[in-house]
Amino acid sequence: MAAQGARTGSRSTRFGADEMTPKHILETAFAFRASKVLLTAVELGVFKSLGSGPQTAAALARRLGLQGRGAGDFFDALVALDFLDRDDNGLYTNTLESSAYLGSNSQEYIGDLIEYLNGRVYPTWNFLAQALREGTPQRGPAASGGFSTFYKDPESFALFLKGMSGGSRLAGQALSKQFPWLSYNTVVDVGSAQGCVAVELAKAYQHLSGGGFDLEELRDPFEGYVRSCGFDDRLKFFSGNFFADPLPTADVLVLGRVLHDWNVEQRQLLLRKAYAALPPNGALIVYEAFIDGSRRKPSGLLSSLNMLLQTHDGSEFTTHDCSAWMQEAGFRDTHVVPLTDTHVAVVGTKGT
Amino acid sequence: MAAQGARTGSRSTRFGADEMTPKHILETAFAFRASKVLLTAVELGVFKSLGSGPQTAAALARRLGLQGRGAGDFFDALVALDFLDRDDNGLYTNTLESSAYLGSNSQEYIGDLIEYLNGRVYPTWNFLAQALREGTPQRGPAASGGFSTFYKDPESFALFLKGMSGGSRLAGQALSKQFPWLSYNTVVDVGSAQGCVAVELAKAYQHLSGGGFDLEELRDPFEGYVRSCGFDDRLKFFSGNFFADPLPTADVLVLGRVLHDWNVEQRQLLLRKAYAALPPNGALIVYEAFIDGSRRKPSGLLSSLNMLLQTHDGSEFTTHDCSAWMQEAGFRDTHVVPLTDTHVAVVGTKGT
Repeated sequence: MAAQGARTGSRSTRFGADEMTPKHILETAFAFRASKVLLTAVELGVFKSLGSGPQTAAALARRLGLQGRGAGDFFDALVALDFLDRDDNGLYTNTLESSAYLGSNSQEYIGDLIEYLNGRVYPTWNFLAQALREGTPQRGPAASGGFSTFYKDPESFALFLKGMSGGSRLAGQALSKQFPWLSYNTVVDVGSAQGCVAVELAKAYQHLSGGGFDLEELRDPFEGYVRSCGFDDRLKFFSGNFFADPLPTADVLVLGRVLHDWNVEQRQLLLRKAYAALPPNGALIVYEAFIDGSRRKPSGLLSSLNMLLQTHDGSEFTTHDCSAWMQEAGFRDTHVVPLTDTHVAVVGTKGT
Repeated sequence: MAAQGARTGSRSTRFGADEMTPKHILETAFAFRASKVLLTAVELGVFKSLGSGPQTAAALARRLGLQGRGAGDFFDALVALDFLDRDDNGLYTNTLESSAYLGSNSQEYIGDLIEYLNGRVYPTWNFLAQALREGTPQRGPAASGGFSTFYKDPESFALFLKGMSGGSRLAGQALSKQFPWLSYNTVVDVGSAQGCVAVELAKAYQHLSGGGFDLEELRDPFEGYVRSCGFDDRLKFFSGNFFADPLPTADVLVLGRVLHDWNVEQRQLLLRKAYAALPPNGALIVYEAFIDGSRRKPSGLLSSLNMLLQTHDGSEFTTHDCSAWMQEAGFRDTHVVPLTDTHVAVVGTKGT
């Protein structure tokens, strides 16, 4: 009946106006401010600076190179938003979560994802209306002439790599726990960027070797990252273009946040190539921020709009779509494996 | 003990890592996407279009001039975020709240505020780090050579007016209910912009007359808006610069979202000028998005950062600060009157 009122455009909504408020509308409309306070705190180094001990607002502002004006409001906004604590002496500290995930380059660090959201994604979303009107990418690799051209700008490249690593670290950690890795010896992450997922798997299982497959431009970033993590003995870089070249062989191939960049035919092609590259009994793991089957949950739908903004044909899709494409490519026993709050995997195997 | 762990930078946070997640960090970091979906829906006219009846995604996309790609995800994201309903036949309708506040230019309409947030505030917040480093305004009137210069750009001017009206309409409505207007006959809103607050008061009380005081550039917008609302018989425009000229006299003066644009000395000057302009027993109403006394609530602190971004010396402040300045200027019986979720008034009277 409520929906009926709105549907017919009747003014019956006016009755009960005392109970109705625009709270939900206003909270969402203004929510970008809290985002930007958090993103900016990472950009300015607030959490890493407090990682070395409590500080007053004045000391912290000096250390971060901030003008006095606004700094106190900024730090207290971080307190109000539960990212910092402030004691009765005016000393600021990281909360437990801020310390664990943003305070230092620890295993759990996601500050690199935040930097990417801050430098790339927030400004790109300002063009959402244009993207919807035109159906074309507004920023990112696709809007810049493709990945190889985009990678020529060192700053964009570095930020993109941070986003790719920070955005897949937690999924990689979950994947290390949610898949029977003891049954397999080799794994290659296809579209690996710096190799964050392969590193998380190698960390968890000493018997695993393999590496990452990506465009030649990713060789140095991959090898540098993997070496800095101490896994260059087990993880190698495989160079190639996954549309032009065959995929490398390994017991397990991973396609994470790759298919969402491309159209359905391209996704199907990549799945067929993965099937061809796998040995008998090999497995493919696809993970994405899938759209829920009922299309009523924000996560996958908002991720899909992000692909609208950043690719020519990309979008998120459902696990049902993904399983169907995998089965068409020959995979069997396809099943869904939850990873994180945002990411889910679909796993399939190649027969004997 | 928890805070202690973070404070000393010990790795004790690792224990209990199974219970700790970065959920709060990630939700806030990504929250700008939900904001931008809502802001963009207003920009594209989604809610007004659905104000005339339910539509399929295809029909709605056509009517709004959207490419097919992304439109379905966009509409379903609005469903997932509770701004639209979708029935089993794939027909989209406004929710009750969307219908009441965004569906048409009704009394409750706040779409003009949303347009201002979308076109001005969201992109300005992208420069938060720079504003904190430099202490200078990044966008808006102050960054464009002052109000009179800024008003020369018709598009910025129009958007600014929408923001000022949309941002004060609910406060004006609350003010009409929370103040003993029957004891007063005249009211002038100082820094009135289009006159939204004066209109809300005139709507609620037939005996009230007065108007708005603002720079001469606001005469046409004020007179146009007031005439369109049917109150040009009771509400007049008073032209002037509130630093250079005396304020007009009325039983009640309102200073809403004005003091936050200026430094403390300027605020004190404006309060003294208001006191001078009031007749004996006159009242002054100051309303703002005040910072809470404990500096632990987001609303006022985030509004204050918005003033950092848009003014040279502005900021939000506490009701305690405001009462103290009012008392210094001569006001008595200062007291706090809650208005909306964001806005609070401080009221003071001039003695006999």
